[in-house]
Amino acid sequence: MVDKKEVAVIGLGPGGVSAAIYLKRYGMVPYCFEKELVGGKVNKTEKIENYAGVKSIGGPDLGMLLEGQLKSFDIKPIYKTVKRVSLNEDGTFHVEYGKDLSHDFQYVLLANGLGEKPFPIQGEETFHKRGISRCAICDGPLYKGKDVAVIGAGNSAFEEATYLASICNHVTLIARRTQFRADQMVVDGFKALDNVTLLAPYDVVSATGSASIESLKVRNKETMEEKDVAISGLFLFVGDMAISNFVDIPDLTDEKGYLITDSNMMTKVKNLYAAGDCRTTPLRQVATATSDGALAATMIHNDYQKNN
Amino acid sequence: MVDKKEVAVIGLGPGGVSAAIYLKRYGMVPYCFEKELVGGKVNKTEKIENYAGVKSIGGPDLGMLLEGQLKSFDIKPIYKTVKRVSLNEDGTFHVEYGKDLSHDFQYVLLANGLGEKPFPIQGEETFHKRGISRCAICDGPLYKGKDVAVIGAGNSAFEEATYLASICNHVTLIARRTQFRADQMVVDGFKALDNVTLLAPYDVVSATGSASIESLKVRNKETMEEKDVAISGLFLFVGDMAISNFVDIPDLTDEKGYLITDSNMMTKVKNLYAAGDCRTTPLRQVATATSDGALAATMIHNDYQKNN
Repeated sequence: MVDKKEVAVIGLGPGGVSAAIYLKRYGMVPYCFEKELVGGKVNKTEKIENYAGVKSIGGPDLGMLLEGQLKSFDIKPIYKTVKRVSLNEDGTFHVEYGKDLSHDFQYVLLANGLGEKPFPIQGEETFHKRGISRCAICDGPLYKGKDVAVIGAGNSAFEEATYLASICNHVTLIARRTQFRADQMVVDGFKALDNVTLLAPYDVVSATGSASIESLKVRNKETMEEKDVAISGLFLFVGDMAISNFVDIPDLTDEKGYLITDSNMMTKVKNLYAAGDCRTTPLRQVATATSDGALAATMIHNDYQKNN
Repeated sequence: MVDKKEVAVIGLGPGGVSAAIYLKRYGMVPYCFEKELVGGKVNKTEKIENYAGVKSIGGPDLGMLLEGQLKSFDIKPIYKTVKRVSLNEDGTFHVEYGKDLSHDFQYVLLANGLGEKPFPIQGEETFHKRGISRCAICDGPLYKGKDVAVIGAGNSAFEEATYLASICNHVTLIARRTQFRADQMVVDGFKALDNVTLLAPYDVVSATGSASIESLKVRNKETMEEKDVAISGLFLFVGDMAISNFVDIPDLTDEKGYLITDSNMMTKVKNLYAAGDCRTTPLRQVATATSDGALAATMIHNDYQKNN
């Protein structure tokens, strides 16, 4: 028999952590699954300064804060990957995780975030983990005093490029368009630096090197002129993609794989909720994920109270 | 002529602060109006422990954090009360504030929170500010070592009663029902204290005293038995109510006066947005307000970009 107070919270980014705290306060029993670190993508962010109530903080520091907060509520993360979520005949959920483990739940909250979008450059496979990174705060220090390039045009690209400029000799940011998705203030902050170059609109043609990446061939999209940029490291901030396909229940997502929810965070399957970046939403931020998690937890608790 | 980058943000609780930060980062120009303190209702809360990323913090401390965060973005609050918001013929907004000031805006975000619901007790008018309070953290220390009563059944009532129990000699919590709106964990925490009494289901009949409140007559709703509770102070946590009637535009609210928005935080009037407690929403928390503010700011900026 399923214990109806138990809730599977899958993913411990800000959305999952927020939900877990609310659930615990409501007297429910959250089972919190995390495949890497509490904080999720937050840990790969150099700095977060737009989360109200948290003054400019390093991403990993916010991750540690979230972890500490769980601990203060006596919530112990289960550090295992959830392999599959499926629907039992009685409407409960079967959650398979780790090597060979499984547990049935009355409620499931998907807060599993996003994965990294592939960015195929000719030669990329050669340099995977040999000069190509997706995390400035993890790998930036490896390129201290060296020249690096960043590919991307959103807040992550400009913010992480700004951070890299404080470590590296020179940073070249390569964007496909001249209209950036990043906030104006963030773009301006980057442009004001004196050891950076902004190449836009440029395509990346190929990567070359021997033991590790050494050069990037880029092409101006207007003049079609090509040139080489000598670098020791390349950082990709080219966006994310949905990774909720471990949920083995049909028709939950939009065409891009994002989970569709109603305004109360419930998917079209009763008692199956989604919060944060993994769902279809106009804005993916720490603030929005935290709110989603709080709301989903509240709705789960409301449902529990109504039926028990 | 209206400067289309200017946005009136009315109210600097977590929702308004979040919006202001996002707007500033987007290169917009927020005008932030606050009639009391940055943080709004947060300042009247003893402790906030369910906001992910902020480990258990005193309400006024979170208020100060929010204030400092605005400062770090060089956003200066305008400490004036907004008296009236009306619609100009060209679709812009006329905002009247302070004694005789006004300014026209392309965009307005209402983040003005809620007011306190009246709670008429026979004799209450006599003791207004003479023993009756709505803020445990403001006035609790006045009752050090004394006996107080708390009226209410939500998280605020139980949490603030728990706080008062740490200062006062004895705390009597009076609730009209035996099913509480407060979280189970919060109720349990209160019940576990040894200097508290929980009276439920009880009605409050009247308040008596001379210079200040001295006694409360209460009635058991089941047995109809009455008794007197001797107290030096009474704290009301009986809920909030909408206070957006300074917005002089028809049909923006539901029957209770909460502002109705779409999922992007826009009211039915173009360029007029609402965020946080003042809007119709299933959950009013720091987390949800912060998210609302971020989303409203993003939608305002998107609209600005599309049209300029």
